[in-house]
Amino acid sequence: YEYRERIRKELDNAVDFWLKYSHDTIYGGFFTCIGRDGKVYDELKYVWLQGRQVWMYCRLYRTMDRFRKPEILEAAKAGGAFLRKFARVSSGQWKCAFCLTRDGKAVKIQRTIFSECFYIMAIDELGRVLGDKDMQLEAEQLMEQLIYWVKEDSSGLGRPQLPGDVPTNSMAVPMMLLCLVQQLTDGRGQEVVHKYRELASWCVQQILQHIQRDGTAILENVSPEGAELPGCQGRLQNPGHALEAGWFLLQVSAEQGDAELRQTAINKFVELPYQKGWDKEHGGLFYFLDVDGHCPTQLEWSMKLWWPHCEALIAFLMAYSQTKKPELLETFSQVYEYTFNHFPDAKNGEWFGYLTQEGKVTLDFKGGPFKGTLMWRLKYDKERHPAEEFALSCGLECNGQQ
Amino acid sequence: YEYRERIRKELDNAVDFWLKYSHDTIYGGFFTCIGRDGKVYDELKYVWLQGRQVWMYCRLYRTMDRFRKPEILEAAKAGGAFLRKFARVSSGQWKCAFCLTRDGKAVKIQRTIFSECFYIMAIDELGRVLGDKDMQLEAEQLMEQLIYWVKEDSSGLGRPQLPGDVPTNSMAVPMMLLCLVQQLTDGRGQEVVHKYRELASWCVQQILQHIQRDGTAILENVSPEGAELPGCQGRLQNPGHALEAGWFLLQVSAEQGDAELRQTAINKFVELPYQKGWDKEHGGLFYFLDVDGHCPTQLEWSMKLWWPHCEALIAFLMAYSQTKKPELLETFSQVYEYTFNHFPDAKNGEWFGYLTQEGKVTLDFKGGPFKGTLMWRLKYDKERHPAEEFALSCGLECNGQQ
Repeated sequence: YEYRERIRKELDNAVDFWLKYSHDTIYGGFFTCIGRDGKVYDELKYVWLQGRQVWMYCRLYRTMDRFRKPEILEAAKAGGAFLRKFARVSSGQWKCAFCLTRDGKAVKIQRTIFSECFYIMAIDELGRVLGDKDMQLEAEQLMEQLIYWVKEDSSGLGRPQLPGDVPTNSMAVPMMLLCLVQQLTDGRGQEVVHKYRELASWCVQQILQHIQRDGTAILENVSPEGAELPGCQGRLQNPGHALEAGWFLLQVSAEQGDAELRQTAINKFVELPYQKGWDKEHGGLFYFLDVDGHCPTQLEWSMKLWWPHCEALIAFLMAYSQTKKPELLETFSQVYEYTFNHFPDAKNGEWFGYLTQEGKVTLDFKGGPFKGTLMWRLKYDKERHPAEEFALSCGLECNGQQ
Repeated sequence: YEYRERIRKELDNAVDFWLKYSHDTIYGGFFTCIGRDGKVYDELKYVWLQGRQVWMYCRLYRTMDRFRKPEILEAAKAGGAFLRKFARVSSGQWKCAFCLTRDGKAVKIQRTIFSECFYIMAIDELGRVLGDKDMQLEAEQLMEQLIYWVKEDSSGLGRPQLPGDVPTNSMAVPMMLLCLVQQLTDGRGQEVVHKYRELASWCVQQILQHIQRDGTAILENVSPEGAELPGCQGRLQNPGHALEAGWFLLQVSAEQGDAELRQTAINKFVELPYQKGWDKEHGGLFYFLDVDGHCPTQLEWSMKLWWPHCEALIAFLMAYSQTKKPELLETFSQVYEYTFNHFPDAKNGEWFGYLTQEGKVTLDFKGGPFKGTLMWRLKYDKERHPAEEFALSCGLECNGQQ
């Protein structure tokens, strides 16, 4: 079927691209700033992307026969070694850098948890491939640190406490933690599942708090109690994030057989963000929107980025696969058409990441500070509709998911 | 002459807009997030813009008869009082917040010197209008703090020292300090001029270090010794900043009668950034460019912003006024046509700030986190070419200049 063939081809192309152009055989790790033609245009190594690439290689190696190749395993090991050697910047706590020089010196630290998240995913997945219990242990230790920062005391992240800076439940945080729970528990048996059960249900609750305005909108930032926040921050919508949260919730609902959660996930986190976020004039999903129709203050609000489209594809396909409602497959097809007509680079392989509202490529690199390995996971199940064989995990924002 | 009339009208419209929509009569200070139609869409108060608005009102009041009105003076005083009461966040050092709540609580602190710069400009200009020596003293004290941060020890700004984070001479820093020297010394006599003479010439030298590639490019970031830095950061060009530095240097050259500096300013900081930065296809100045033609990693690199165009107008007019070379006036006209055809909002007054590469308004607010009062200074001199009566200071980035 055409979807499957196309996606298989894109995945092969993408993996080839990163295998060919991104490996630093001298200092280890991966170059992450790679131009349209494969040339490294900056030697900086972004830690999110180091982690994601290790994860991607390992997950491909572990779960898909055609990627079970020594060169992929060796690259993943080299990347993991680089991360473990250089990513941590403080000896006491587990804070990781956001960006490193080619030889591993810290350039920048973000005052968030995301570098650490991608570190955990990388090291846990690598530990699975290698059967290395130390790595699993390291991932779980760092996870404890993250939980402490998120739920107990965030001062270790380095952000000054300011009287006007109100506590915020930002969608990205419970979503990433939920993703990590799924990574750490995947196939590991009841003991580990039990260990993170409370955290998982806390994450789900935190995500559900983002349903606002009597169920008519998903807002990106809410108060810790689930109330709407004032101003632009409170009115912000990020359709790609909402869709991503949607398929995370669909996974949870499938694992737990929770039909109510499934319905909420589909109605509020899959269909609603698509209705609000799809550009009726030019096609594609907006990056940011204001729920009251004001202009967002982010200069890039109207741009079309690759990753929200990947999230949408996964979310709609998963929603269809769980419900068999044809309208979900129709929307999948619509997003598929836009995505595959706009993002792939037929000439040099891999995908462009950034389009104008009108759909023109405006940043033409293949890797940059936030765009890295394009990850596809083909979920192959002969009994399902061919479209369901679609890549169920792709792009930067959604690694580590089943 | 048409230029003068149009500019006078735009200035009047802009001042009316801010007088009408931005004053917070309850908590003091100014709303800075104002939509296309004048509605406040967020109550946050950005400190850069508080400072700039105080400065603008005071400079207009002090130097242009038609703005010498009690309502402007009162608004400036109220803004100044709000700033002095709330902007400082630490009691020991002089660190200022970047953003405050409506009632003055700190929301965010930048780890840079720019909030402090705009605070100084506001308080110095207000001190001039009110004849308040304490304000002058406060401005000069804070200036000492800035100089210490820039030249001695930046740790007070709160940025962690990281081994891979190389020291950088970023164009904005010497440019802003030079701007402050001109503000603090303007008309104040030899003692103050003498006090800042060394700093002023240090700033000029630091700015000149940005001439790179055998004089064929102005690069935004260089090493403290004036060498090119590696990677994207080193190759970055910001045509608007270069043009802004250009007219700052032209002012210095005029004050000091330095013909060589004038020539360098015109060739390297006015003509060169225009040649490199002007979009031959769609018109307007790019926001960022890579000197080797790579794609910048800033998502907004190809957008057309209002302030680089204001800087270009000022720079070309000033260059023409000092040399009478007709080609400089021709370029001025070209920039003028683009600017006045694209940025003003004929319906609701004031200017839009953000266009796509193709020239379409893509963020339609009048005030946002970085866009505030549009400041024009009409430099009126009957003996000059009418175009020279043009506003010689406009927009966010260039307040405080003669």
